[in-house]
Amino acid sequence: MKNENFLKKALDLLKPPTKTYVEVAKTIEIKKKNQYYAVPTTDYDRRRLKKGDSLIVDFGNHEVGYADFKFNYVGSHPDAPAWVRFHFAETLQELFENPDEYHGWISSSWVETEQIHIDVLPVEMKLPRRYAFRYIKIEVIDISSKYDLVVEHVGCTAVSGADDTKLKHYDFGDAQLNHLDEIACRTLHNCMQTVFEDGPKRDRRLWIGDLRIQALANDLTYDNADMVKACIYLFAALPMPDERVGACLFLDPVPEVDDVRMYDYSLFFIPILWNYYEKTKDIEMLRELWPVAYKQITIAKKELGNDMLVQDSDELNWCFVDWTLNLNKQASAQGILLYALSVAIHIAQELGDVMKEEKLAELYMECRQAANNKLWDEKKKCYVSGKDKQVSIASQVWMILGEAIGGDAAIELLERVEAMDAAEEMVTPYMYHNYLDALMLLGQKEKALEVIRSYWGGMEALGADTFWELYNPKKPDESPYGGTIVNSYCHAWSCGPAYFLRKYFMPNV
Amino acid sequence: MKNENFLKKALDLLKPPTKTYVEVAKTIEIKKKNQYYAVPTTDYDRRRLKKGDSLIVDFGNHEVGYADFKFNYVGSHPDAPAWVRFHFAETLQELFENPDEYHGWISSSWVETEQIHIDVLPVEMKLPRRYAFRYIKIEVIDISSKYDLVVEHVGCTAVSGADDTKLKHYDFGDAQLNHLDEIACRTLHNCMQTVFEDGPKRDRRLWIGDLRIQALANDLTYDNADMVKACIYLFAALPMPDERVGACLFLDPVPEVDDVRMYDYSLFFIPILWNYYEKTKDIEMLRELWPVAYKQITIAKKELGNDMLVQDSDELNWCFVDWTLNLNKQASAQGILLYALSVAIHIAQELGDVMKEEKLAELYMECRQAANNKLWDEKKKCYVSGKDKQVSIASQVWMILGEAIGGDAAIELLERVEAMDAAEEMVTPYMYHNYLDALMLLGQKEKALEVIRSYWGGMEALGADTFWELYNPKKPDESPYGGTIVNSYCHAWSCGPAYFLRKYFMPNV
Repeated sequence: MKNENFLKKALDLLKPPTKTYVEVAKTIEIKKKNQYYAVPTTDYDRRRLKKGDSLIVDFGNHEVGYADFKFNYVGSHPDAPAWVRFHFAETLQELFENPDEYHGWISSSWVETEQIHIDVLPVEMKLPRRYAFRYIKIEVIDISSKYDLVVEHVGCTAVSGADDTKLKHYDFGDAQLNHLDEIACRTLHNCMQTVFEDGPKRDRRLWIGDLRIQALANDLTYDNADMVKACIYLFAALPMPDERVGACLFLDPVPEVDDVRMYDYSLFFIPILWNYYEKTKDIEMLRELWPVAYKQITIAKKELGNDMLVQDSDELNWCFVDWTLNLNKQASAQGILLYALSVAIHIAQELGDVMKEEKLAELYMECRQAANNKLWDEKKKCYVSGKDKQVSIASQVWMILGEAIGGDAAIELLERVEAMDAAEEMVTPYMYHNYLDALMLLGQKEKALEVIRSYWGGMEALGADTFWELYNPKKPDESPYGGTIVNSYCHAWSCGPAYFLRKYFMPNV
Repeated sequence: MKNENFLKKALDLLKPPTKTYVEVAKTIEIKKKNQYYAVPTTDYDRRRLKKGDSLIVDFGNHEVGYADFKFNYVGSHPDAPAWVRFHFAETLQELFENPDEYHGWISSSWVETEQIHIDVLPVEMKLPRRYAFRYIKIEVIDISSKYDLVVEHVGCTAVSGADDTKLKHYDFGDAQLNHLDEIACRTLHNCMQTVFEDGPKRDRRLWIGDLRIQALANDLTYDNADMVKACIYLFAALPMPDERVGACLFLDPVPEVDDVRMYDYSLFFIPILWNYYEKTKDIEMLRELWPVAYKQITIAKKELGNDMLVQDSDELNWCFVDWTLNLNKQASAQGILLYALSVAIHIAQELGDVMKEEKLAELYMECRQAANNKLWDEKKKCYVSGKDKQVSIASQVWMILGEAIGGDAAIELLERVEAMDAAEEMVTPYMYHNYLDALMLLGQKEKALEVIRSYWGGMEALGADTFWELYNPKKPDESPYGGTIVNSYCHAWSCGPAYFLRKYFMPNV
């Protein structure tokens, strides 16, 4: 099923990430007063570690890379190995969570911990795996009583596919906005590796939902068009058996599509392709990949009922929308289909594909009508989703982005639903990004800026160096995985502030 | 303090161990009925491992080497690392012991366990550390629920400095003796690496007490004279600050003497040198190292009291003798001094060093007289040791080997003390080796053979592939380290049966 031509185009564009050597900023100890905080302590290389002793080094910022160490000893010649545990952490809190106590549904193998035995000292060594971290805890599990371990040096070969020299810095008018932009750029920077990864602590996969947001932010920051192009060709090259674009791809050991299928994610191939075209005007690529994009509509159409509504499903994550089990996805899926159809119509127009343009326009009108007739609740005056007629912010946001509703009616709709206690709220920066997009479409610039300040600013206030996979202001310890120890704290889909600030709030230069 | 000339001679003789690739003999599961036993089960490569699953492979014999693995998966493309624990074990019982529960006084870093994360599958990998083992347990700590791990291959690059083609096999008249010889040879084989190690599971150091026995057995088995010569020069090259020959040496990162000093171990340099000379007639080497050997007598003499007795000490292991805290070492030390003096006199004679010969002979007579006057208990009719006049087998054995007593009087002494309930018994094959040596000196061949059959045969009956560091027939679970999980089950000082059988019980060919 692989398209070798597309695959070759993709692979030819991929480059290995560039390396930067980073030193430890300080050695810290951690205290708690409501939340954990760090205070500087004796430098790591001046400590002598016995059995059970540990130290924590702080690199001063979020890094993705390979750690190296120089260990030595004081006392008698080592007569037994030093048994050492490393715990790499993106946040201070992770250092207080015990992987043995994590029993959530994804694998605890994601916890960035290792154990090694050091047979010969002194030694310089590099751990072979890549980690995403700001902190490293080094703990002596056991050692001979005849000597103490000394960590003479810790460093990190940081890696990224982002070119720092391309990033321009702007003054957005106040310190908070400047800082939010900086954190968002760092988030994107550390998720840009050989491809756009979703979160370097865990997956290292290329997810299309993240790619859509990363590509937008990339255009206005690190401007690595080749990486976007390669990722688009990878998805086109590696469809699922029914020709659906996959939700995510693996690169190793060979590029391969995952077996995860999501209604919304396949459709996002279309706006990603269009966005790339708008940026580059690469008409040949648009023409070459148009059949792949159009195919996604054909596939999505099959899941419409006779009522022209996307059929609901009990299957977990049949359509992603947001990282919450409570959310009913039907109305959002309908909105996303409208959004994708609308973009597909633009592509057909650009390519002069009149036949398809007409078909798409007809389908769009039917689906829009179905949405407004059958998913609109006259009593609640909002879109509802599923057989229980669930009200959620997400459903309204996607109906607005799919232009089922617009103008003042849409502005009032959002305000009305936001005021409803029973409305399902958003939990990820990913859904908040789409919410911001809807606000911008409605010209609600001030409100959008306030969301950036309060939502992403909430993470900033909690000490984020990069923005997180999950942030629920009401429940900062929420995890969809049954434990925050496996949460990703540098997650591509949360880099949106860099895009919104640089697209809509640029200072007058 | 290093003698660079001696060190160069030693290093020039050292060769890297040779490699042999070994396949798994079978996959097993372990049952218990009084003791643990193994039964074959489904081959490892036909198993699918989920979280918490494990398998155990059996190489069929004790190996020292580097394990390699080929891992693959069945199910969806791996979407999380496989977190795998390895536990290498010399005996079945070790697999049921938990390193987290070991709180003895040597480091649990000796437990042969590792954890790794496998990011990309399929993968072929080799663990970088050397292990001593017959069994490997492979356990999936955690893994994604979307795939199962498959161990497609396990193998071992076994290493040894013993040349198998040099080993002759003999029929000692019955199956048990043949098997004991075979196990003893395997023990020596796996302890012969770059140097004679004491036990390949733990130290990897060159200990002089083990070297003495290994050199004797080596002469009659693998006949690697260069390794013996190199080890002698290493000890001569790397004395302690007071010119005492060290108890043990490290090879890595550079050859260095340990700071452990033992009264008896320094003196054993003399019989080791003499034994090598008797075998090779290398008079130049004998002459070159005679000052080092003689120095050990000078140093040992300083610890004599005015009564010409070795002064007792409360320092732990000031003199080794046997691996038990109860044993008082004074009388044994006196016997060992006599034994070393006697050998030193032979060397002085051989080299025509009349001055030293006379001095040594005079010292020998004074010490022998002191032993028989002051350590002989007329009531108990045996040698006693320390201020509490402790009776032990060890004291009698070393007085016999030091020829303080001989003939029928010595034979009766041993029988008398063996019959005393209060006499301290022997706990290691090391002390049993010296006991056998005493029996042979007294012409007690049959009794010696019976000791080999019952003591080393006791380990054989418990399934030993190689002979152990410790074996107390009355307490098979004894450990001087606070837990058998760190005991060494292939330990050089227990290879004695190969020496005794091949020296004294050779079949008429």
